[in-house]
Amino acid sequence: MERPRHQGMAKNTYMRWRLPLVCLLWEVAMIVLFGVFVRFSSEADAHWEEEKREMNLTSDIENDFYFRYPSFQDVHVMIFVGFGFLMTFLKRYGFGAVGFNFLLAAFGIQWALLMQGWFHSFKDGKILIGVENLINADFCVGSVCIAFGAILGKTSPIQLLVMTLFQVTLFSVNEYILLNLLHVKDAGGSMTIHTFGAYFGLTVTRVLYRPNLEQSKDKQGSVYHSDLFAMIGTLYLWMYWPSFNSAISDHGDAQHRSAINTYCSLAACVLTTMAFSSMLQKKGKLDMVHIQNATLAGGVAVGTSAEMMLTPYGSLIVGSISGIVSTVGYVYFTPFLESRLHIQDTCGIHNLHAMPGLIGGIVGAITAAAATEDVYGKEGACLLPGAMITISALGRFIKAFDFTGVYQTRTPSIQGGFQAAGIVVSLLMALVGGTIVGGILKLPIWGDAAAENCFEDDVYWEVPEDEESDVYHMHNPDKPASP
Amino acid sequence: MERPRHQGMAKNTYMRWRLPLVCLLWEVAMIVLFGVFVRFSSEADAHWEEEKREMNLTSDIENDFYFRYPSFQDVHVMIFVGFGFLMTFLKRYGFGAVGFNFLLAAFGIQWALLMQGWFHSFKDGKILIGVENLINADFCVGSVCIAFGAILGKTSPIQLLVMTLFQVTLFSVNEYILLNLLHVKDAGGSMTIHTFGAYFGLTVTRVLYRPNLEQSKDKQGSVYHSDLFAMIGTLYLWMYWPSFNSAISDHGDAQHRSAINTYCSLAACVLTTMAFSSMLQKKGKLDMVHIQNATLAGGVAVGTSAEMMLTPYGSLIVGSISGIVSTVGYVYFTPFLESRLHIQDTCGIHNLHAMPGLIGGIVGAITAAAATEDVYGKEGACLLPGAMITISALGRFIKAFDFTGVYQTRTPSIQGGFQAAGIVVSLLMALVGGTIVGGILKLPIWGDAAAENCFEDDVYWEVPEDEESDVYHMHNPDKPASP
Amino acid sequence: MERPRHQGMAKNTYMRWRLPLVCLLWEVAMIVLFGVFVRFSSEADAHWEEEKREMNLTSDIENDFYFRYPSFQDVHVMIFVGFGFLMTFLKRYGFGAVGFNFLLAAFGIQWALLMQGWFHSFKDGKILIGVENLINADFCVGSVCIAFGAILGKTSPIQLLVMTLFQVTLFSVNEYILLNLLHVKDAGGSMTIHTFGAYFGLTVTRVLYRPNLEQSKDKQGSVYHSDLFAMIGTLYLWMYWPSFNSAISDHGDAQHRSAINTYCSLAACVLTTMAFSSMLQKKGKLDMVHIQNATLAGGVAVGTSAEMMLTPYGSLIVGSISGIVSTVGYVYFTPFLESRLHIQDTCGIHNLHAMPGLIGGIVGAITAAAATEDVYGKEGACLLPGAMITISALGRFIKAFDFTGVYQTRTPSIQGGFQAAGIVVSLLMALVGGTIVGGILKLPIWGDAAAENCFEDDVYWEVPEDEESDVYHMHNPDKPASP
Repeated sequence: MERPRHQGMAKNTYMRWRLPLVCLLWEVAMIVLFGVFVRFSSEADAHWEEEKREMNLTSDIENDFYFRYPSFQDVHVMIFVGFGFLMTFLKRYGFGAVGFNFLLAAFGIQWALLMQGWFHSFKDGKILIGVENLINADFCVGSVCIAFGAILGKTSPIQLLVMTLFQVTLFSVNEYILLNLLHVKDAGGSMTIHTFGAYFGLTVTRVLYRPNLEQSKDKQGSVYHSDLFAMIGTLYLWMYWPSFNSAISDHGDAQHRSAINTYCSLAACVLTTMAFSSMLQKKGKLDMVHIQNATLAGGVAVGTSAEMMLTPYGSLIVGSISGIVSTVGYVYFTPFLESRLHIQDTCGIHNLHAMPGLIGGIVGAITAAAATEDVYGKEGACLLPGAMITISALGRFIKAFDFTGVYQTRTPSIQGGFQAAGIVVSLLMALVGGTIVGGILKLPIWGDAAAENCFEDDVYWEVPEDEESDVYHMHNPDKPASP
Repeated sequence: MERPRHQGMAKNTYMRWRLPLVCLLWEVAMIVLFGVFVRFSSEADAHWEEEKREMNLTSDIENDFYFRYPSFQDVHVMIFVGFGFLMTFLKRYGFGAVGFNFLLAAFGIQWALLMQGWFHSFKDGKILIGVENLINADFCVGSVCIAFGAILGKTSPIQLLVMTLFQVTLFSVNEYILLNLLHVKDAGGSMTIHTFGAYFGLTVTRVLYRPNLEQSKDKQGSVYHSDLFAMIGTLYLWMYWPSFNSAISDHGDAQHRSAINTYCSLAACVLTTMAFSSMLQKKGKLDMVHIQNATLAGGVAVGTSAEMMLTPYGSLIVGSISGIVSTVGYVYFTPFLESRLHIQDTCGIHNLHAMPGLIGGIVGAITAAAATEDVYGKEGACLLPGAMITISALGRFIKAFDFTGVYQTRTPSIQGGFQAAGIVVSLLMALVGGTIVGGILKLPIWGDAAAENCFEDDVYWEVPEDEESDVYHMHNPDKPASP
Repeated sequence: MERPRHQGMAKNTYMRWRLPLVCLLWEVAMIVLFGVFVRFSSEADAHWEEEKREMNLTSDIENDFYFRYPSFQDVHVMIFVGFGFLMTFLKRYGFGAVGFNFLLAAFGIQWALLMQGWFHSFKDGKILIGVENLINADFCVGSVCIAFGAILGKTSPIQLLVMTLFQVTLFSVNEYILLNLLHVKDAGGSMTIHTFGAYFGLTVTRVLYRPNLEQSKDKQGSVYHSDLFAMIGTLYLWMYWPSFNSAISDHGDAQHRSAINTYCSLAACVLTTMAFSSMLQKKGKLDMVHIQNATLAGGVAVGTSAEMMLTPYGSLIVGSISGIVSTVGYVYFTPFLESRLHIQDTCGIHNLHAMPGLIGGIVGAITAAAATEDVYGKEGACLLPGAMITISALGRFIKAFDFTGVYQTRTPSIQGGFQAAGIVVSLLMALVGGTIVGGILKLPIWGDAAAENCFEDDVYWEVPEDEESDVYHMHNPDKPASP
């Protein structure tokens, strides 16, 4: 095979000074900003004993740590092992999948603590962080991991860090608009994490379109064991998704309910995914790509509504539909997006996050609009029948949707409308932001590889010479052995 | 190698319409049944605030969610990653091991929520589910995963779904008989999960006996990395077993004690397994099959008794014995079962679940029968010495064994007898049920593979052409390369 | 390649009687000792109901189990999957890495429950164990897993068991000196676990120096997939380290704060590791060895101080520095240690545990010495301004550093001095203990392999003949195929 001169020669993937410079400068910036702004929240501070007395808490177990830490750890596993290993399916990009995901997430959570902190935990000039901030930082980075899926194998680590910097910033702005200005509920992030993250990533990969990508086609597939590594990622995402959707819900029934709804949705999703994976192929065989990805769509699609009274059968319906949509997407939409719209989506995030994310936003809007006093409680009704029922229902509803202060005139149907607006805003932020960031990443200074070297760890990693690769080259004698 | 004509030709493994039909129809059935029956329990419902007040709970932290959710997630990992990866040891059946386990468990938990719900959580025409139901559904499916181990590599996905449907049903009936009619304690499921699941699976594989299975003998072994994948499964099962045995125990000391007993039992089991693995082989080398499986027998064998006052040294004894029994089983019993009784037990569940499950049931019966007022408390004794001691001991004992209502005449030794009866009932249910279900699975309509194609993912999965398999065929030039 | 006669012949690695004998005798000893000494703590005992009333606890949720069990499970995963898989990077020593780690840890936790129990939980002739003891036993074994990293691939399983027996003993003595005599704080074990474990292991490997180790040089590297297996270990250690450092801290803010500090430190560490990994290599490529190991140094380096008011930016600084030190260590110190000091450190524990452990001890001493009433609270100050402030500050400080009883005259700076003394004591214990234990392990009776057979599973394990190894031997026709 001949090397395309014009391109292969032009690309400089040498990272020795650029990558360390970016990493070190940014880490110094983090230290300075943390030094100026970040302190412990009252529940993590040594003064907690006083705080506890003030809040009339009788036991240390009522520290938010004990409500959320187990869920936090599950979310943490999803971000680092879940997303990291899910992307190891490529035969020669396992180091990049796990390693770059590790790098961008480790940077992203620091920057997210700051960005989200300024918007949500800023008090007297300081950002006060506790376990909920750690979860939110992981969530924010989750949207970057999603976008990474679209450009997997085609970008340099510096590009990923630059993308993370901008995407975390835009994520935080979008989240602020949705949660604080539109007063929208989105505990599991169907809109803020999945819709935003996926359309952002798809826009970036569109801007970075590589016309000659078929030059690395032989490396775009999996090998037997790389598919098993990817299943580690899949299963951890699948198993811990109930924790993801319930991690920042209100204490008590809301966390409990979110976990149950997500559990049900995911279980249903597996069955419809298997069904369509077999049905859509002539030979009727199951396709690992679908099992690795579409089985997770059920978690995405109840992200907004899981903490609401979606009910278990509602969850089964949503999960079933999203599994079908996602699998059909892999078979028909992904090739279409690539050939017609020039969107090269390595992991198929359009099927796993974008479409199920939209479904999740819509289901959330409908569930919110359909909320009734009967379902969400009518406490106090006994005191004063009649008019009081409405008030008390509203009172009960306040707990679920926070209709207080300036939002007290909201009705469920108005809330539904605002939820829908949240989807549109997330989409717009993603498309505009993705275009700009994609443009920045297109600058020829970030050290991305030539098309023929995409999906190849050897570009940025010391790769061991192993027997396997010996065989690989033995069967491809026209290719030079990896160094 | 010549293909046996009469068999290889007759088998139709084409899944394209059959598998989707089963998956979709059953999922629709689940949706309808969930719609009619399943609702949130009071602790997961939006009315929890009122419930909390009624139950005089002062904090959200007393929601059962916070007592059990961390254990639930550990159990969830055991079912999907633990069992799934444990069975990836076969060189060319990793997709089937992880993927089919995923499919059957995802269906099984839905059906189990219904079946167990009707028996245990049915109130005013509705099944009310909370986190404990999720754990129990995972437990129920655990027994199916165990049975899957016996028939691994020899059945079609449809057969597995059919088996799951019937086994979950029988499991729930058996569980109802044991827990509600015999009033037996079995929090970690030595009887209901392991004994029942294993003997059920062994009976099924006996009915499905394949006389020509040696035709796929070359695929019944492991390769180096498949053994490492299997160790992921082993370790997650081993580490999280304390959560398994404590997940549905009573709040407080019972959960605490179950975890400690299981921890001790499993630690001891590793040492005796290693000892016998080395001792029973001429060359004195350790065998990965034993390390992957027999080290777990200690968890099975304290399933019933872990929440009782088994004590740490009792746990060490039980764990030590079960490791020995299990390893000896792999070396001597498994070949015997296959050659003499025609029981082809792919994963050796007889050694890992059946025998240790029986030990667990017996240890539970003995521990229950040996219970004394001294060990389980004699509160109130100070008020009225003498006769009162017995009453108060009984009163204390009630908390551990629920000797209330119609069961208040039970003594520890009677309870021991009933525990023993539970073993016998589980065994009978497994043998009778397994025979019937095995007969159903023998019908030639489910698409199972010919003997020569057993233990081969290629039958039901799109398998990537990788260098490894190229080599495989390079070394076996008489075999056609996988498509 | 010719086999060196004098050595290869002399070594007897036959385990058949020796390994079973050691395992079984020791397990019997454990059973006897547990029978004599070990009982449940009051929170795990059936009498907990009475205890609860005495302690005025209103709910079962205040059982220590619910404060610590989720962290315990995370620590458990770190010991068995984390350390186990981290060491699977060698191409032909995966079974030994995971399997021997499993063996030594399973024995070690039993022996640690006894040793630590005698020192810390001994009451009326009995060791009373609860979930905190399980965590401490895992911690103790963690130090053995660290030492195992230095001698990985060069020792027999019996040597590992002997080392575990002695190291657990010495660990417990050292821990007693530090925590009880010097009254030092070290919740995450920078000194007791990492400094002690690492220098102990380095001393042992120095004593066991093998001059001909280059004979197995071809097996000291990784292959592509073994590096991915190792990343499973890395990520679980990295993700769960916040649980490790917070697991035995005081309830409430201390656990909360430890988790946050560790999270921050580890995130920073990833960036500086990546930076220096790229910078220190001519080609600027990232090295998997650094990513697998040095990214974890941030967790080690805040082990002592995480529960103190280190603050998030302090954690970022410590994490950044430790990542740099560790990566530089892999590039420059490890070769130096081997060539000049004859310390053959297979996993580079000097870089991952020894140096960061020292940093952790020093940071802990400084943080303790820098403690002020302002940071740790001045409750009661309002009652009596002036002199009272100091007293109340001391009162507050008592909660964090336990300045009660004979320690009430301690000031922060004196405490800092004692913390520093803790480092020195740990170092001395490690060097003296390691020399003695190394000498014992050098006895020619333990069945270690010849230099040419190091890093090879085939010596102690039944290894499957797989295609991969066929290829391996096809490419190395002068070597006999593995049996």
